[in-house]
Amino acid sequence: MSKVLVFGHQNPDTDAITSAISFAHLQRELGVDAEAVALGTVNEETEYALNHFKVEAPRVIETASNETDKVMLVDHNEAQQSVSDIKEVEVLAVVDHHRIANFETANPLFYRAEPVGCTNTIILKMYKERSIAIPKEIAGLMLSAIISDSLLFKSPTCTDEDVAAAKELAAIAEVDMESYGLEMLKAGTNLSTKSEEELLSMDAKSFPMGTKSVRIGQVNTVDVSEVLARQEALEVAMSAENKKEGYDLFILVITNILDSDSVILVNGEGQDKVEAAFNVTLTNNTAELPGVVSRKKQVVPQLTEAFK
Amino acid sequence: MSKVLVFGHQNPDTDAITSAISFAHLQRELGVDAEAVALGTVNEETEYALNHFKVEAPRVIETASNETDKVMLVDHNEAQQSVSDIKEVEVLAVVDHHRIANFETANPLFYRAEPVGCTNTIILKMYKERSIAIPKEIAGLMLSAIISDSLLFKSPTCTDEDVAAAKELAAIAEVDMESYGLEMLKAGTNLSTKSEEELLSMDAKSFPMGTKSVRIGQVNTVDVSEVLARQEALEVAMSAENKKEGYDLFILVITNILDSDSVILVNGEGQDKVEAAFNVTLTNNTAELPGVVSRKKQVVPQLTEAFK
Repeated sequence: MSKVLVFGHQNPDTDAITSAISFAHLQRELGVDAEAVALGTVNEETEYALNHFKVEAPRVIETASNETDKVMLVDHNEAQQSVSDIKEVEVLAVVDHHRIANFETANPLFYRAEPVGCTNTIILKMYKERSIAIPKEIAGLMLSAIISDSLLFKSPTCTDEDVAAAKELAAIAEVDMESYGLEMLKAGTNLSTKSEEELLSMDAKSFPMGTKSVRIGQVNTVDVSEVLARQEALEVAMSAENKKEGYDLFILVITNILDSDSVILVNGEGQDKVEAAFNVTLTNNTAELPGVVSRKKQVVPQLTEAFK
Repeated sequence: MSKVLVFGHQNPDTDAITSAISFAHLQRELGVDAEAVALGTVNEETEYALNHFKVEAPRVIETASNETDKVMLVDHNEAQQSVSDIKEVEVLAVVDHHRIANFETANPLFYRAEPVGCTNTIILKMYKERSIAIPKEIAGLMLSAIISDSLLFKSPTCTDEDVAAAKELAAIAEVDMESYGLEMLKAGTNLSTKSEEELLSMDAKSFPMGTKSVRIGQVNTVDVSEVLARQEALEVAMSAENKKEGYDLFILVITNILDSDSVILVNGEGQDKVEAAFNVTLTNNTAELPGVVSRKKQVVPQLTEAFK
């Protein structure tokens, strides 16, 4: 078999990068000539993890079919989140923890999805099922992904299996997961060097809601006031994005990873829907959302309901 | 959680029926209130297996949403092969060995697919991963499915994993898999009571090939001449089907399960393409295809290529 490229989604986060690394290693142990690559450069949180465990970042590819005709996907399956020429290659395997949509193959394949908080929780299981040992540095990266996806186990997407997997991986990686995890998350919250446009696009997704198009960005921080100090410039940038991309409403979720709370900043039409969704009153376009950290579970469903 | 219905594809074969039974049992052992049901009545081969191991056939359902809002799919994923109101219910889990297409969920789910010969080979793995014992009669049914899907290990879809799984299950079921398997396959070849229309539709699928619509049916037998004795009536029925359903070409693959050979009977346009695909000359609309038993691997790709 020719070389197989393994990669996570575009605009990669720590799970997308490290699950490519851990799954490619597993495949090589099973005799497959697999290489982990990435669909974008690593963010500062991921960089912290890679540096800590002394692993190089995967090289970034633009297309896959110029190198191979066989790929494996991790942490995603939807075509629009994948490599641009995904239709030109055969998908041999998928490991993922998201819904399945916009995904189709011509042939039978390996597909392993579970509704857990992190792709690497599933990959750990696959190592154990095959009795393959996990190198210390790869265990460290897998642990980093679970901490990242679960915000140190505080996100409602985090399951008991994710916590158990993290403990197991921390023992192999020989790190204290609480102190290491907090330092890693903090490394991802260095927002001061980023422009307003960068803050809005760091981790943003679009959602059709009722007849409206809603854009929801999220930034993690240890100091919400630092972000809110830039409110005026952020609102100008949100308004410009709305016009340019045709969004009706832009919501920036500013999440305090220490307190597990969020503040939202809102721009555009439908502010009444936002107030209804979270049972709050917007003051100067902002509102506090105590206990909210997960866009997937605590923001999108509530807003979708309000826009119905 | 309310009751969860577990079912295989429409027009069920032995794997569709028995994987629903074996997976529902596994789910119940895991604490889920799961019931195996079927999207059609069992065929004679499956009936033989159920009788042998003294297990009742699952009840047949027409729709799922009148009973539950949660289902699990085995041995299929494509919506057009599933229950008619699949869009009205949530799919919690899928175990399958086919390609993925026309399948979409709103939420993350369990999805386990592997490119092996039989769904029950994957389900055996899941029992073992969770250290759950398989009751003797369920092991017998799982074995029956592997024998059925692999034509007693002779089909090119059969992998080493399927053979190993069958041996393990035969030991639990306490049967000799060769002699039991042959009896079971023979039970499915009682074609004398069936009309020509039934023979054509027993296991038939449609395939777009180039600009043509090709219908390919398959029947298993221990006596090909018994089927060919009905050639004239079969051709009348094939011709009528082509007209009624708009097929350009109908191919009936008559497979001798003892010799692992097939004879094809062809009706409609594009006979030159059939001759090119299999490098044969049609005589009286028939040709021998030595060693051919798998429609998926030995008939469809070759014909698709010829119609390009």
